[in-house]
Amino acid sequence: MRDVAFRQYIKLLTLTAVTVIIFAAAPGVAGAVQVSDATEECIGCHDEVTPGIVSDWRESRMAKVTINEALQKNPDKRRVSVKAPPQGLADVVVGCAECHTSSPDRHKDTFEHNGYNVHTIVTPEDCNACHPVERSQYAKNLMSNAYGNLMDNSVYRMLIDSVNGVQSFEQGMLRTHAPDDLTNADSCLACHGTRIKVEGQVVRDTDMGEMEFPVLTGWPNQGVGRVNPDGSKGACTACHTRHEFSIKVARQPYTCSQCHKGPDVPAYAVYMVSKHGNLFVSQKDGWNFESVPWVAGEDFNAPTCASCHVSLIESEAGDVIAERTHQMNDRSKWRLFGLIYAHPHPGSADVTTIKNRAGLPLPTELTGEPAMEFLIGPEEQEIRLERMMKICSACHSRSWTEGHFAKLERTVETTNAMTKTATQVVQSAWDLNLSKGLEQNDSIFNEAIEQKWVNQWLFYANSTRFASAMGGADYAVFANGRYYLSANLQEMSDWLRFLDKAKKQE
Amino acid sequence: MRDVAFRQYIKLLTLTAVTVIIFAAAPGVAGAVQVSDATEECIGCHDEVTPGIVSDWRESRMAKVTINEALQKNPDKRRVSVKAPPQGLADVVVGCAECHTSSPDRHKDTFEHNGYNVHTIVTPEDCNACHPVERSQYAKNLMSNAYGNLMDNSVYRMLIDSVNGVQSFEQGMLRTHAPDDLTNADSCLACHGTRIKVEGQVVRDTDMGEMEFPVLTGWPNQGVGRVNPDGSKGACTACHTRHEFSIKVARQPYTCSQCHKGPDVPAYAVYMVSKHGNLFVSQKDGWNFESVPWVAGEDFNAPTCASCHVSLIESEAGDVIAERTHQMNDRSKWRLFGLIYAHPHPGSADVTTIKNRAGLPLPTELTGEPAMEFLIGPEEQEIRLERMMKICSACHSRSWTEGHFAKLERTVETTNAMTKTATQVVQSAWDLNLSKGLEQNDSIFNEAIEQKWVNQWLFYANSTRFASAMGGADYAVFANGRYYLSANLQEMSDWLRFLDKAKKQE
Amino acid sequence: MRDVAFRQYIKLLTLTAVTVIIFAAAPGVAGAVQVSDATEECIGCHDEVTPGIVSDWRESRMAKVTINEALQKNPDKRRVSVKAPPQGLADVVVGCAECHTSSPDRHKDTFEHNGYNVHTIVTPEDCNACHPVERSQYAKNLMSNAYGNLMDNSVYRMLIDSVNGVQSFEQGMLRTHAPDDLTNADSCLACHGTRIKVEGQVVRDTDMGEMEFPVLTGWPNQGVGRVNPDGSKGACTACHTRHEFSIKVARQPYTCSQCHKGPDVPAYAVYMVSKHGNLFVSQKDGWNFESVPWVAGEDFNAPTCASCHVSLIESEAGDVIAERTHQMNDRSKWRLFGLIYAHPHPGSADVTTIKNRAGLPLPTELTGEPAMEFLIGPEEQEIRLERMMKICSACHSRSWTEGHFAKLERTVETTNAMTKTATQVVQSAWDLNLSKGLEQNDSIFNEAIEQKWVNQWLFYANSTRFASAMGGADYAVFANGRYYLSANLQEMSDWLRFLDKAKKQE
Repeated sequence: MRDVAFRQYIKLLTLTAVTVIIFAAAPGVAGAVQVSDATEECIGCHDEVTPGIVSDWRESRMAKVTINEALQKNPDKRRVSVKAPPQGLADVVVGCAECHTSSPDRHKDTFEHNGYNVHTIVTPEDCNACHPVERSQYAKNLMSNAYGNLMDNSVYRMLIDSVNGVQSFEQGMLRTHAPDDLTNADSCLACHGTRIKVEGQVVRDTDMGEMEFPVLTGWPNQGVGRVNPDGSKGACTACHTRHEFSIKVARQPYTCSQCHKGPDVPAYAVYMVSKHGNLFVSQKDGWNFESVPWVAGEDFNAPTCASCHVSLIESEAGDVIAERTHQMNDRSKWRLFGLIYAHPHPGSADVTTIKNRAGLPLPTELTGEPAMEFLIGPEEQEIRLERMMKICSACHSRSWTEGHFAKLERTVETTNAMTKTATQVVQSAWDLNLSKGLEQNDSIFNEAIEQKWVNQWLFYANSTRFASAMGGADYAVFANGRYYLSANLQEMSDWLRFLDKAKKQE
Repeated sequence: MRDVAFRQYIKLLTLTAVTVIIFAAAPGVAGAVQVSDATEECIGCHDEVTPGIVSDWRESRMAKVTINEALQKNPDKRRVSVKAPPQGLADVVVGCAECHTSSPDRHKDTFEHNGYNVHTIVTPEDCNACHPVERSQYAKNLMSNAYGNLMDNSVYRMLIDSVNGVQSFEQGMLRTHAPDDLTNADSCLACHGTRIKVEGQVVRDTDMGEMEFPVLTGWPNQGVGRVNPDGSKGACTACHTRHEFSIKVARQPYTCSQCHKGPDVPAYAVYMVSKHGNLFVSQKDGWNFESVPWVAGEDFNAPTCASCHVSLIESEAGDVIAERTHQMNDRSKWRLFGLIYAHPHPGSADVTTIKNRAGLPLPTELTGEPAMEFLIGPEEQEIRLERMMKICSACHSRSWTEGHFAKLERTVETTNAMTKTATQVVQSAWDLNLSKGLEQNDSIFNEAIEQKWVNQWLFYANSTRFASAMGGADYAVFANGRYYLSANLQEMSDWLRFLDKAKKQE
Repeated sequence: MRDVAFRQYIKLLTLTAVTVIIFAAAPGVAGAVQVSDATEECIGCHDEVTPGIVSDWRESRMAKVTINEALQKNPDKRRVSVKAPPQGLADVVVGCAECHTSSPDRHKDTFEHNGYNVHTIVTPEDCNACHPVERSQYAKNLMSNAYGNLMDNSVYRMLIDSVNGVQSFEQGMLRTHAPDDLTNADSCLACHGTRIKVEGQVVRDTDMGEMEFPVLTGWPNQGVGRVNPDGSKGACTACHTRHEFSIKVARQPYTCSQCHKGPDVPAYAVYMVSKHGNLFVSQKDGWNFESVPWVAGEDFNAPTCASCHVSLIESEAGDVIAERTHQMNDRSKWRLFGLIYAHPHPGSADVTTIKNRAGLPLPTELTGEPAMEFLIGPEEQEIRLERMMKICSACHSRSWTEGHFAKLERTVETTNAMTKTATQVVQSAWDLNLSKGLEQNDSIFNEAIEQKWVNQWLFYANSTRFASAMGGADYAVFANGRYYLSANLQEMSDWLRFLDKAKKQE
């Protein structure tokens, strides 16, 4: 027989011992931590000017550990992926100057500031100095292209224009005006990322006297696909929030909820009513969100968003359950987010080249068939599913996991079918001249019956699929789920009839 | 005069002393904890195969305390209700084998596994060995019959079919097809529970070589009224989540939120904007969710779902404020959930025998009168209300509590009245042949105006009542409350008119 | 170079030392804490009768610190604003009797209770004894007048009546009946506050024998603008929840969420998907919610509702970033909450005197122009904006902050424009006799097309503005944001057409 309580006791003893050692060792460790002269000069003023930022940074790991120290650890325990210290970074911690003055020529927002060439916007190219693997993985993530993938797509632009444009009422008719940049930045681009431009310089009267600063448009913004003044795409700070850059924050679903909670993509909302979400929020006070690698069963006992989609996960025995990925979609068989149907993930993070057979920049036809030449094939789909199932297997039997994903497969089928039916109803409106669509050279998103069609795939089908994928049942039924998916069709059908009768009276 | 701070000080001293004693005693306690040979054999492999489950279990109370130890406590401090140790369980902790190999003949999902007769699905009959009182209480809970109560009711089946069925668009008409089992399992039955069937055997290639496993349909599922392969009804793990079975988790409202957050039954959402919810989430880091009995004012200072509806609650003086119940409805005067009107609770947990005067399997008439012969009477209603009010009285005066429930009584009246008015509107649609109802042998839930009627009682009336019962004001007004209850009637009325005019044009 | 880790180490040492000192000093502190004889007598019974309340109070600061002790602190560390101890309160802690028996003549709900003149409802006038500054600030807060501002406004009353009134269906027509007091109390007045009246006395049979109590209507209620039996307005306990009155609770956004989460005013919901909300909920276990003053960067590293709108905020260096205010609106340039348009804040907390040029009791015309004589001017608006921006500056550069508020300015413009367009549509319905408005002496909130107009400004414009102000992007787009703001106009336009055609058929 095995002695379970004894095991617990040893754990406690170890924990105590480790704590004692940490305390004892602190002065020694402290001796090794060095802040560069440049950073110290930044802090000299900013401790007073923006004390909150400086305080955040002081709490950060970057303020405490040098690259050389980091490189002494086993690779699976490192948070840096560079093989050797970048020039000048070996023995100082990463502070203000290390990020905000690197490669000044590359940064169009560089300005002279107290003798330093400083840039406001730190970009993935800056982070690349120490985190090259993560940076290149993220470049394969659809999110890194979220600005262009949205703004350079003529169909999605129709949706943006109809959502963000101000409407006026003239002679009994509504007219939509083109949205302005500030509104787009406050709306879609808050998550997708803006294109930040340097528009000149401005002199400000500060506590330190007159100083010159760059004038930026599209700023502030921390969208995942931000186009930066140095030409790079993305904002690591979207998830690794400034200036503590805490892995504890990034690993909690609240970070993802910034952009994945709304009715279009209710992943967070679904998670929070799932068993996993229940365990997370009920027990997280006893979890370790800082540990690298992240050990299933020891550091946490139910997955968060990061566990399934991002983090390096190991077992207590040290076996790798999942490799770290910042591509994120490489553990997902389907792109559940319908455009307008759920489909296999695109093969490239830049989806601006996609064209379906009808000539539209969409990954599926309006009738549902996927534009397969631009999407991953069945083999890659299975590889990705297996990666995900290996994570499930840390706690669930194969039979459980297969049963779970069998339901998801069916949900993809049925929600796509319900999207197709809704498309047939709106198509019928276009055909009968009750609404103006592509053939009338009009937006397909700017009339009531078209918007009810948008609700069908953007809200109800997505909600149902996310709920099915993550086991948050409410969102598969009454919380924007199948109940709405069904009722909306009846609403569209009646509306079509009302439009038809109204037209006949004219 | 009394010295308050001194009292605090003594508490601290005691806490410190207790901590020291626990540490000192650990090896002694450890000596008493014994894992059975069978369970040890399970762990031998599963520590590697499904490490997360094993780790959860190790954290559980079941892994640490034997029945004999539990029986040495005062009855009100026990978590088991059995009077004497079941055979073989006296001196071992409850591990894998104790649950997954008990009564192999009863379990149709039993399969041979490394020399043991193992069943996948642990059922209330298995838990009954140590928790017979809770098991029999739960059998009186409507939830334990949630599968049959839903699936064997011809009216509710109409709703299921219209929600889960895929619709097609043929010759300008929508047609609803019968939903399949996987979809029902992913939708309504995720919470209500599936019927799990053994459909044969499958051989899998595992890390341990080829092994045979049962093929289960309706699996995975942890719905409250799951029909298990051993014929029993329910899944204790719906709330006591595997494999830690933590009372800390079950007592937090996040567990209930798995099924009680959506617009049909927004109990959790309401709670979270109530004073009680505010206190819970703001202060829970200082509460004790593990203590049995649960002491009001000491372990917690605002109720959670469990405090009012389930747990054994005592005062600091040791007086019983509420007895533990897994029947759950025995502290509730009303069944607030409208079907289609709020009504006194059914007398039996199996509601499939209910028939109203119109011959429908509903606890009220469509015109609102309750089918009293199947429901608890006024006397029992008052007993249940008094039980609840006694809990309120731990913190509130009688005048407060009576004032609170007076508002709820009025809310039940007015929301039932608003449901009746909506029913009259939809009845008028049926009478005028603008929609097909029971008299036309059609579903009463599958047309737009009918679904707006469903919204009235299933979403807006329910939301208003839950908000009134628990003091979450938003849900009584603008968050699916009275504002919607009122506006929806106007919408229905206009819709009826549009249907009427459309028909007249045909 | 500066040694960062050493700084951490010193912090730890200090913390340890402080802890030791606190423990050592406890008996000394305890010796100074004294409960009055009267309060001790209250507790004598209520420890048994309502143990939860007593336990809450024991945990409270009021039970531990006397006014004289509080007055020994630096003013910025005090939680009381009185300059000298009120009579009798110098050396006793504030217990039951100190609040519930003060000024018995003023309180109409005073009753004889075991030899004391006790009143049930403690009011801002009672709290005023020790917190006069906060009490007078709160009197300038719109919330303190929330009862009269709502109930004494003929336009808002139309909305209340249409929301809370029960409707009947007679001869194919809906008819709305006036709502009763209990319903209003359970609905709008739950947050706005009721008017509490003493309606007589009742004798109750208690555990202590027969006792007489006052009969109160409008009770229980903790709305922010409650009209109390002593004539005062407000309930400090709306935010400082009885009977612990914890600043830790009041400073967390859950307190505000009690009334600011619904679709009309989704401030909490927006906050929770913002960066600030993410940091709060991910890191709050390491924050200090008790400290006065509240030090940015030390006690918390992202703002909660209280940080921006209420609390005294200082920097680590001891500079005041924001003065404490219970007026709350004095850091806000705009009243984002549209009535029906966003507008500058009213100059007085009592808005019952406001009349726009059209003679309506509204702060703007129905066409959008603000009723400026009743509102703060541009100069005061800028002062308030600067107060808020100073808080932002603790962590953000001027360029960041200005960029942020530039987006908000545009959002105020565009959402007001979208409200105006919707108003033109409903005006057109009134003009064409398709709906009855003010000119037909009818409510402007009781028909379907009018309610869709209400949705436009009350839900979608408000949601978009709150999201813009606090950076919770979802609520600016798909979660009741611009997508709905746009789609609702199309829905209204089609509805107008359907109404028109229906009328033409009659």
